[in-house]
Amino acid sequence: MRPDGTGTSPVPKSLKDAAAFDVADPLAPLRAKFSLPDHVTYLVGHSLGPPPLKALETLRDTAKQDWAEGLVGSWNSADWIDLPQIVGRRIAQLIGAPAQSVIVCDSVSINLFKLVGSLLHQAAAQSRLVVDASEFPTDQYIVERLADRFGAEFLRLQTGDDLDTLKDGDILVRSLVDYRTSEVADVRAIEAVADKQGFTVVWDLSHATGVLDLKLADWGAKYAVGCTYKYLNGGPGAPAFLYVDPAHISSLETPLAGWLGHARPFAFEPRYEAAEGMQRFVAGTPPILSLSALNGALEIFDEADLATVENKARCLGDMCLSRFEALELQTQSPKVGARRGGHVSFEHDHASAISQALAQQGYKTDFRTPTTIRIGLSPLFLTFTEVWRALEALEGILTANTYLDPKFTVKAKVT
Amino acid sequence: MRPDGTGTSPVPKSLKDAAAFDVADPLAPLRAKFSLPDHVTYLVGHSLGPPPLKALETLRDTAKQDWAEGLVGSWNSADWIDLPQIVGRRIAQLIGAPAQSVIVCDSVSINLFKLVGSLLHQAAAQSRLVVDASEFPTDQYIVERLADRFGAEFLRLQTGDDLDTLKDGDILVRSLVDYRTSEVADVRAIEAVADKQGFTVVWDLSHATGVLDLKLADWGAKYAVGCTYKYLNGGPGAPAFLYVDPAHISSLETPLAGWLGHARPFAFEPRYEAAEGMQRFVAGTPPILSLSALNGALEIFDEADLATVENKARCLGDMCLSRFEALELQTQSPKVGARRGGHVSFEHDHASAISQALAQQGYKTDFRTPTTIRIGLSPLFLTFTEVWRALEALEGILTANTYLDPKFTVKAKVT
Repeated sequence: MRPDGTGTSPVPKSLKDAAAFDVADPLAPLRAKFSLPDHVTYLVGHSLGPPPLKALETLRDTAKQDWAEGLVGSWNSADWIDLPQIVGRRIAQLIGAPAQSVIVCDSVSINLFKLVGSLLHQAAAQSRLVVDASEFPTDQYIVERLADRFGAEFLRLQTGDDLDTLKDGDILVRSLVDYRTSEVADVRAIEAVADKQGFTVVWDLSHATGVLDLKLADWGAKYAVGCTYKYLNGGPGAPAFLYVDPAHISSLETPLAGWLGHARPFAFEPRYEAAEGMQRFVAGTPPILSLSALNGALEIFDEADLATVENKARCLGDMCLSRFEALELQTQSPKVGARRGGHVSFEHDHASAISQALAQQGYKTDFRTPTTIRIGLSPLFLTFTEVWRALEALEGILTANTYLDPKFTVKAKVT
Repeated sequence: MRPDGTGTSPVPKSLKDAAAFDVADPLAPLRAKFSLPDHVTYLVGHSLGPPPLKALETLRDTAKQDWAEGLVGSWNSADWIDLPQIVGRRIAQLIGAPAQSVIVCDSVSINLFKLVGSLLHQAAAQSRLVVDASEFPTDQYIVERLADRFGAEFLRLQTGDDLDTLKDGDILVRSLVDYRTSEVADVRAIEAVADKQGFTVVWDLSHATGVLDLKLADWGAKYAVGCTYKYLNGGPGAPAFLYVDPAHISSLETPLAGWLGHARPFAFEPRYEAAEGMQRFVAGTPPILSLSALNGALEIFDEADLATVENKARCLGDMCLSRFEALELQTQSPKVGARRGGHVSFEHDHASAISQALAQQGYKTDFRTPTTIRIGLSPLFLTFTEVWRALEALEGILTANTYLDPKFTVKAKVT
């Protein structure tokens, strides 16, 4: 692959090839550091990552030692009080951001409210809040209602709308990786347009963190939020993160002024004064058990170079797209690996039944109503061989029309 | 004790008495259902409750079975998606509220923002947000900033200010139990004043839930938030709860319109539509590991009648206050048990050193800067005997001036 990602790189073309790729894969040893059920190929790591063993271990120790033995003293002795910052430093390394620029607490939805609410507070009166109509729904909901409550104009971009329409003072919320197609936004280019036209971008890194080699600071990104339970494997509903370019932190005043964001939370002063740095974005008491599991989960990245991780995801994605093409499946996932995140998706009228037929054979995929199947290609625990076999199974199901079997009826799916 | 709480009831007057009270205590068997370190008397359950064994067990199962085995499918198969409602039903029983009136998610700070923000949105333009200057700090911070951002007037009541000054449309946030003195607000009386004058009360039940026999619906309380890691023993930073009288739920529109509060979260619609009932207050994905520990922790209340729990807390508190009086310690905790929550506090110039001297003997208490010691009297796991011994130790330390020993120097304390 050429550095601009436009070239071609070798992709396994047979089961034997796939096995050879596994032998050469520097990430292969990491699979043993996950707890994964036998006989399951888990292609839903883009939705909920499986537990690294270290996450389970840290969770157990936090519960049985810190909580049960240390009791309330663990806020100091086990560093619970600093955990939003400690975990933030780990995530900063994974998104190419300075150590003190990331904090971990609350959910993506709430962190987005804090960040956009802070930006809007210091913005000019005519500033608009802007999202794309294809943006991840919670981002649209949070931003539209925030605009309503704070008295700002809200603009929903339609497909094909140009960012040239954005004006000085506007605040745009945008996903770095599209949750359906997996298309990657060109952060550097969009930030350049933003600088030129005077608007601000808040990035949602939820489907990007832990699978792409992000370089937020280099790319000129100033504000971001992101999820930790997908490729970061932090556990169901693990606390989310919030990033601000250090040059801009001190000017931000969160609308959610909770006590743990106070400069002196334990002085119990009646008036709020924001803490220095990113701590100001911690509102209430963070869920320590969930946060500790995330802290443990992130240790696996000490052994994984993100450039290698991204390359493996790209190669697995190329392998899938090549097969989709052979099967004449309709996909909106970019063919060019450098423009793609860690998942690929395809459309099929019988997507639900296909996903269930695959699951019956042990291949867990992610059906999205009405006609989408997403395949998550988490490089830390998947092998080329098992993804190859999943594609073989998909081909078999499509060729034999297995999905027409009445037992694969539509069921509600929640992820 | 007479039903109005003004009478006197027997209190242990010796170690032998205390032992007899323990023998007669119907809650005594519950202590064995907690994980508590040996040789520690834990008088800080009002700040962070210790783990019930069932909380640790549920947490382990959620991590090792539901997350590691069930993976993303556990959102359905392990009912993760309904957990905010499932745990809410348990808490509803503990606060005297209808089953569908409570939801569990996020922190007290954030839930207060949601609730007060919703009420303000539907209130008249001249509505003011009101808190007392002695209110728990995060409630003051959240409400004052919310008023600023939503363009409402903010009023901070000073000690002695009368609620008669509140006007039609005002929204008052008030703790049911004062976090320092333990004084209990008269909910029924304040709601009567509120009804008469047309203001709304949002109750903070943080220091009350799980130790007082709350009857919110009977008392006419319409809105409340509360913490779950104190007397509910849900674990550090366990998700908080939010209560709304069912008659008022459907008119509330949260400022934090996250996807899991949407009527059809998995339809991925671009526009927000609030879910029926309390689900509308769930914003982002809840921290399932922390929430599952809380769910397990609450099972112990299946075996504990709250009237019995409240009575035991009252008796332990009477025992403490009687000793404080004998030791001429200054306290603001109400003498009348019915006006007191689950903790008592006293003031001393050397409070920090006294707390440390007690800790050295295994009696964990809660120092609050600058001169307060709080003693939490959690009835589910404390014995009369050990509280008696703690008071004996306190007397010894005060009589012998042990606290003047330089080794008990002031240290930062975080709880």
